[in-house]
Amino acid sequence: MLEDLTGRIGPRLSGSPGAAKAVVWVEKEMRRHGFANVKLVPCMVPHWVRGDVENGQIATTKQPLSLCALGGSVATPKGGLTAGVIEVRSLEEATKLGEKAKGKIIFYNRPFDPSLPNTFGAYGGANDQRVRGASVAAAVGAVGVLVRSMTLAEDDEPHTGAMRYQEKVKQIPAAALGIKSANKLSSALRINPNLKVSFTLSCKTLPDALSASVIGEIVGYERPGEVIVMGGHLDSWDLGRGAHDDGAGVTQSLEALRLIKKLNLRPKRTIRVVAFMNEENGGRGAAAYAERVRKSSEIPYAAMESDSGGFMPRGFGVTEAKYEAVKGWEEKLRVFGIERFSKGGGGADIAPLGPLGATLFGLQPENQRYFDYHHSRNDTIDKVNPRELEFGAMAMAMLAWLISEEGL
Amino acid sequence: MLEDLTGRIGPRLSGSPGAAKAVVWVEKEMRRHGFANVKLVPCMVPHWVRGDVENGQIATTKQPLSLCALGGSVATPKGGLTAGVIEVRSLEEATKLGEKAKGKIIFYNRPFDPSLPNTFGAYGGANDQRVRGASVAAAVGAVGVLVRSMTLAEDDEPHTGAMRYQEKVKQIPAAALGIKSANKLSSALRINPNLKVSFTLSCKTLPDALSASVIGEIVGYERPGEVIVMGGHLDSWDLGRGAHDDGAGVTQSLEALRLIKKLNLRPKRTIRVVAFMNEENGGRGAAAYAERVRKSSEIPYAAMESDSGGFMPRGFGVTEAKYEAVKGWEEKLRVFGIERFSKGGGGADIAPLGPLGATLFGLQPENQRYFDYHHSRNDTIDKVNPRELEFGAMAMAMLAWLISEEGL
Repeated sequence: MLEDLTGRIGPRLSGSPGAAKAVVWVEKEMRRHGFANVKLVPCMVPHWVRGDVENGQIATTKQPLSLCALGGSVATPKGGLTAGVIEVRSLEEATKLGEKAKGKIIFYNRPFDPSLPNTFGAYGGANDQRVRGASVAAAVGAVGVLVRSMTLAEDDEPHTGAMRYQEKVKQIPAAALGIKSANKLSSALRINPNLKVSFTLSCKTLPDALSASVIGEIVGYERPGEVIVMGGHLDSWDLGRGAHDDGAGVTQSLEALRLIKKLNLRPKRTIRVVAFMNEENGGRGAAAYAERVRKSSEIPYAAMESDSGGFMPRGFGVTEAKYEAVKGWEEKLRVFGIERFSKGGGGADIAPLGPLGATLFGLQPENQRYFDYHHSRNDTIDKVNPRELEFGAMAMAMLAWLISEEGL
Repeated sequence: MLEDLTGRIGPRLSGSPGAAKAVVWVEKEMRRHGFANVKLVPCMVPHWVRGDVENGQIATTKQPLSLCALGGSVATPKGGLTAGVIEVRSLEEATKLGEKAKGKIIFYNRPFDPSLPNTFGAYGGANDQRVRGASVAAAVGAVGVLVRSMTLAEDDEPHTGAMRYQEKVKQIPAAALGIKSANKLSSALRINPNLKVSFTLSCKTLPDALSASVIGEIVGYERPGEVIVMGGHLDSWDLGRGAHDDGAGVTQSLEALRLIKKLNLRPKRTIRVVAFMNEENGGRGAAAYAERVRKSSEIPYAAMESDSGGFMPRGFGVTEAKYEAVKGWEEKLRVFGIERFSKGGGGADIAPLGPLGATLFGLQPENQRYFDYHHSRNDTIDKVNPRELEFGAMAMAMLAWLISEEGL
């Protein structure tokens, strides 16, 4: 399934032809596997397109910079943007520049903290630069931002990802720099603080587009109204193929339910796969799904998400209140690589189900390699080990089964 | 260090110029890091060379087969060996062929059992074909053997590895087939059981060569005579660069002791790195080291080995009798990825220290990808994630420190 999704369909950014094909594909897969009540849950999604032109250089020395537009960015002027550069390490530092920032490109260059064992922690400690950097810089008069890619890899692939403009602040173009390019620019600035950088982006935001999440299930024989969700997101960034992020999660969810079906197991509770649309730049699919649940009579009993890559499973996060209730299952999940439950679970797509009462679970695979590929051209299927991917699917199937049969 | 060892030195099969360079290199590294009592422990090693010619085909259809000589194999006749082929799934099946095997090539094609969660278990269940297949086939009159590569990867890279001839049985050439080639040959045999295969190997065994393991240490301040070994093997197969097998283990051992030194920690007991020579095809370095220990007055207190790849650590195996003694350390090792100790520890190079009284530990990294690269041209540094490698080194340093300070 992951070969199909990444190879035949490819990138699936919300609103793109790839995303539309992916919706059709996953609906077809669900029918092929014999899931019940297969349907689309529509949502309107942001429709950002990268465009054809994307390049940059240290203008003063003509050294090229490897970069890509951040998702949601406006374009530069047609001939590109050329300006002096100020390097900062934080949003606060940018704000403090005050007048000095006027007319400049702000270069956010705070790296991941490599001393954090969990790379998601390192990501969380750096990505405010990507998400909020442009508006913070614009507020003090900057004309553009360059952001060090959110990765620990030491290559020069730029990593895109969502950025958001603050209301009533001028929208300025924002691009991610590959790590080598970020280091190169930083060195060059030490030698010549007055150098100029130019970069060109041709991206733009089109009107919102119609899209959909896709659901399919096995109906519980005893408590059909209590629904256990397994999910991942169907959309991906436009670079790469969204193999780990999050073709893995979608196909693991499909595979987990397929396994239960294939084994002719009849669950007490309903087990449902949700392939969420638009996790990357809006969360509209998650919101629409939660809204649908809220308006229905069904009980959102539990939800688990796989959106941390298709690597070997190591644990599940779980809503803190249910930690003690599930701890006894660790032993049964160990053969699939799950060592333990930890407190705090979920993921962006199932988070809205928490307030509706669902116990949330997040699959935690081995995480060291994830940000090497995440949101870059390198997120392709050759980085996914098929056995590791399958272990994740098996762990999800087992957990869903335990929730269904033993209850929480 | 691993870049140096795999990039500047490269393959390091016992007796090769690469192995000799690796001995010099590791001695230099130990001195550079300020280890004490750096020295070589000499041993005579088998000296097998692959030679220049290695090819094969289904002679009947001219379809090429991707293959390589197994380590220790004799050559084919100069113009190659051409014969009919019988496919078997086990040594027993080969023996039962009796007269039918005469003049034939025996094709051992039992795959890894993919249902085993631990790939080392799958390896253990298949590699008797590689190690003993030739002599078992020769005993019933076969003229050569082809063995399905010891891997779960679905590519066509042949994986070499040690084979051993039984005494007084005719020595016949033995080669590993890439998985796609093995599948191709198996399919072809179903269509035409009378097809012929030809293959040519130019490998040979030269006289034993002088080589050495290398040791270096930090001398314990309280019980210097109680020695804790951290080790991996310095030799590798000639295909690939021995990055995971076992450049990882050697450089992790070096790094672990370097970390302890760098932190200015003074251990109670002596902590020693041993870079073992000749693990792959003889174990002569391990034997010579154990013999040296046996003849000395030192106490081989504990030994840990990293020879399962440079992937993210998950556990340590430990000599069963000491399991309860170390179990309490799990919590302290968790930050390095170690989830637990399991009973039964060690590895080929430290095994001889067990009977001398040492408690044995084996680092257990995540194992799903290991046999994708193991003994093939794909065992190169790009398959090693530097962070995962470092976590292993840190886990080893921490464990060595705990053994030294708290005792077993």
